[in-house]
Amino acid sequence: MSFRATVLTLYPEMFPGHLGHSLAGRAIERGDVSIETLQIRDFASDKHRSVDDTPSGGGAGMVLKADVLAAAIDHASAESDRRPRLLMSPRGRPLTQSRVRELAEGPGVTIVCGRFEGVDQRVIDARGLEEVSIGDYILSGGEPAALTLLDAVIRLLPGVMGSAESGGEESFENGLLEYPHYTRPAEWEGRTIPEILTSGNHAAIRKWRHEQSLALTRERRPDLLAGHPDAD
Amino acid sequence: MSFRATVLTLYPEMFPGHLGHSLAGRAIERGDVSIETLQIRDFASDKHRSVDDTPSGGGAGMVLKADVLAAAIDHASAESDRRPRLLMSPRGRPLTQSRVRELAEGPGVTIVCGRFEGVDQRVIDARGLEEVSIGDYILSGGEPAALTLLDAVIRLLPGVMGSAESGGEESFENGLLEYPHYTRPAEWEGRTIPEILTSGNHAAIRKWRHEQSLALTRERRPDLLAGHPDAD
Repeated sequence: MSFRATVLTLYPEMFPGHLGHSLAGRAIERGDVSIETLQIRDFASDKHRSVDDTPSGGGAGMVLKADVLAAAIDHASAESDRRPRLLMSPRGRPLTQSRVRELAEGPGVTIVCGRFEGVDQRVIDARGLEEVSIGDYILSGGEPAALTLLDAVIRLLPGVMGSAESGGEESFENGLLEYPHYTRPAEWEGRTIPEILTSGNHAAIRKWRHEQSLALTRERRPDLLAGHPDAD
Repeated sequence: MSFRATVLTLYPEMFPGHLGHSLAGRAIERGDVSIETLQIRDFASDKHRSVDDTPSGGGAGMVLKADVLAAAIDHASAESDRRPRLLMSPRGRPLTQSRVRELAEGPGVTIVCGRFEGVDQRVIDARGLEEVSIGDYILSGGEPAALTLLDAVIRLLPGVMGSAESGGEESFENGLLEYPHYTRPAEWEGRTIPEILTSGNHAAIRKWRHEQSLALTRERRPDLLAGHPDAD
């Protein structure tokens, strides 16, 4: 069973973008993942093919029209379609690794990429769009966010990650930032690898790594420690 | 003065990716932005051109070697280079719109894209790499994160955004999520635009929008409200 992504966008040429290479690119080639795009503008009904209009109540920017976007969504995702419908938006709930995992376990996603000032709220409500934010910064549109989300999801699909790439996830799995890594050479520019790591004492190494994770999380991400069982 | 990004990666073919289109694409075409890539593997010194090795102390995955990465960084970014050196990493400090703005006001960035399990900590320390995370999820590598960060920065460069795209930033500027948007038609699928927005009473519209922003932020992002002047 392959994972099917349908992306509604004004810039279909941005896809598959970086997903055309490396892990994701091979998954697409094997047919384990498909990424289809739908040009929102093809669903405009007036002679100018307009997709946006000025915001009701005034203000800067333009708003994606409910009627046009709804027509595109209805074309992409029938009522029987079980795939979640996401809208990439800085107003959304922050994307988490657990939501990424849920998406990877499902049949796929339909993703709406906003542009301009925003999207008419009525289409968000009427079509049950789940607003998702990939971080607290503003992008040129939903496309870079959609590509980022898809990258996170695709790497979790069965058979996508080789052993060389695996393991990077334990970090967020246990709710802490990852401990520092070292590899050969033993000495580099006068800097050595912490002795404990070459001691062969696996229990001590595990303890040291956990302490390092805790200290780093405390320094950089105290928000993650709130309620963590290992927090002081 | 143009903004210069140098990206150190094992997948230079992923660039400029989606940045080759739309706003960023035009900025690159005009010469307002340049995105150079450097293949980290070109700096490997052994006959197998290896860039990674097993983690000291054991564990899954592979670690990018300090010596190889340092050689690439030293080639890309001389001591006199004032550009910040970023390392895209889930261990990093979360990217914020204010950091994006700082970067956009500077001469450019050097960005190291990690892959595998991680990067030897000694090169992070010795070369003063600033670890930046774009969100609490795991990507296949630093490349999608670098492309996302560059998109956020490029849209803020002088002359990049046209009036149609502007305005979307006030949202984060005032520390709240953005209020809902509406545009014509006045009625769609039986759903109408909130009356206040067509009242012409600008003070009332401003008040309504602010209340909507506060309510949405309280529901979705109570973390943003901590310490906000308008929080209850």
